[in-house]
This record gives sequence, C-alpha cells and structure tokens, in this order.
Amino acid sequence: MGTLHRFSGTEDHFDWENVKSLHYAEGSAKGVSGKIMIGTDDGAEHFVFRYFCVEPGGHSALNDYHVHPHGVMILHGHALVTVEDKQYEMGPRDVIFIGPWEHHSLAAVGDEPMGFLCVIPHKDLLAKLDSAKQK
Amino acid sequence: MGTLHRFSGTEDHFDWENVKSLHYAEGSAKGVSGKIMIGTDDGAEHFVFRYFCVEPGGHSALNDYHVHPHGVMILHGHALVTVEDKQYEMGPRDVIFIGPWEHHSLAAVGDEPMGFLCVIPHKDLLAKLDSAKQK
Repeated sequence: MGTLHRFSGTEDHFDWENVKSLHYAEGSAKGVSGKIMIGTDDGAEHFVFRYFCVEPGGHSALNDYHVHPHGVMILHGHALVTVEDKQYEMGPRDVIFIGPWEHHSLAAVGDEPMGFLCVIPHKDLLAKLDSAKQK
Repeated sequence: MGTLHRFSGTEDHFDWENVKSLHYAEGSAKGVSGKIMIGTDDGAEHFVFRYFCVEPGGHSALNDYHVHPHGVMILHGHALVTVEDKQYEMGPRDVIFIGPWEHHSLAAVGDEPMGFLCVIPHKDLLAKLDSAKQK
C-alpha cells in the first residue's frame, strides 16, 4: 500500500531507508556511488528512481551513450553536465532531460559532492516496447 | 541536445524556466497547482516529471484511483500522504511509490505550502503497452 523511503542521509550524501546500493562501474566513471530509491523491489514496472552521488572532481562515464533517456534533477552541489556538444552548469533543483542516444556525462564541480536524482524507464518496459514494435 | 529547465522559483513555490502550467482540476482537489517539468515538449516519451504545489489546508483529489503509478519525492513543506488504508507523514526528500490502482491522496499539513515531484509513465506509453498486450 505504497512504499515509503524516508530520507536518512546528510546534506551532501543523501540516503533513504530501505533502499539498495546500486553498483555503478562504467569504465571511465570516477567517484560515483548510487542508490535505487524506487525500483523493482517496490513493484515499480515503468520507471526507476536512482540517486547518484559524485565526489568532488568525479564524474559519470564520459560520453555515455545508450537507448534509455534520463530525467535528472540536481539535489545538492554543483554539476557540469555535458550533452552532445553543449555544456551546462547546474545547481540544486535544476532539471534536465537527456534523450535516447545523446552522449552525456555529469561531473561534480567545486569542493562539495554533487548529488542528483536520475529517472530512467524500467529496462523490462523498454524490452516490451521493442518486442511490440517488432511484431 | 538535452533540455534544461533552470530553477526559477522561491523556497515555497517552485518554478523552472520554460515549463508549462498543468491544469489540475480533479473534482475534490483543493488548492493544488502544477507544472510539467519534463514531458512531451522535451521529447520525453517514457515518463513525465510534474511538480505540484499544495497550499496549506489543501490536498490532491481524495481517494484518487487510476492505472498509472506515481513516483513521488517531497520537495518542500510537510505532507500527509494516504495510500489505501495507510497514512504517512512525509517531509522534504522523503520518497514514496504509489502503485497502479492504489487509492491515494496527498495533503499539505502545517502553515507552509507543500510541493512535490510526481513522476508518471507517459500516457502514450501506457497505451502502447496495453495495445501490445491485446495482440
């Protein structure tokens, strides 16, 4: 009857009750850790809420490139977000949509960790859509 | 090349650049306004990021009930969230998943407006999945 995850973190390292760590080890990533805030364990079949924390000087996989889009909201710290040939300085509450097959990376700038919410479609849903298209 | 929406609001009424207001007029709702932060206009085909602001004493439609799930993060203020026969007091950064066909409502408690991010699957995507299932 709803699945609640109460905030249990600190100002620069967010965490929630009853969430799992997410193994994020893309080749070129540096200083990134993740959590799954809403996902399969909650019964969510359409989307996944992930939180990533990037240490100062760190970044997600450079030039990352894949079929699934990202809906991102910066939660703390400051980011330099690269999408294709554009760069955006972003701070708390700023939002960006990164479309399918857009090369992208998110880096922490400044002395503080940078944390963001990153929503993606559930991978089983992408597979179902792909399968429906092929029929 | 990514679609950026910079935060442009205040502490208790969030807003972003280049977002549209969302008409929310469910029968029993009171004191609720909304914005679409990420949606069709951004090219997003899988999910929609909505922001709702609930004035003190206000609430979303009572006992709302529909096929689409919600991924919710409280952004400011304090909420009383009802899902089926459970009630949860929630504050900033707390997260809840509300599944398909779970009766629910979100109310603002206290003297401040309550704002939350509410992610839903895109309605065209739900239609595609439904159509694929029927084939």
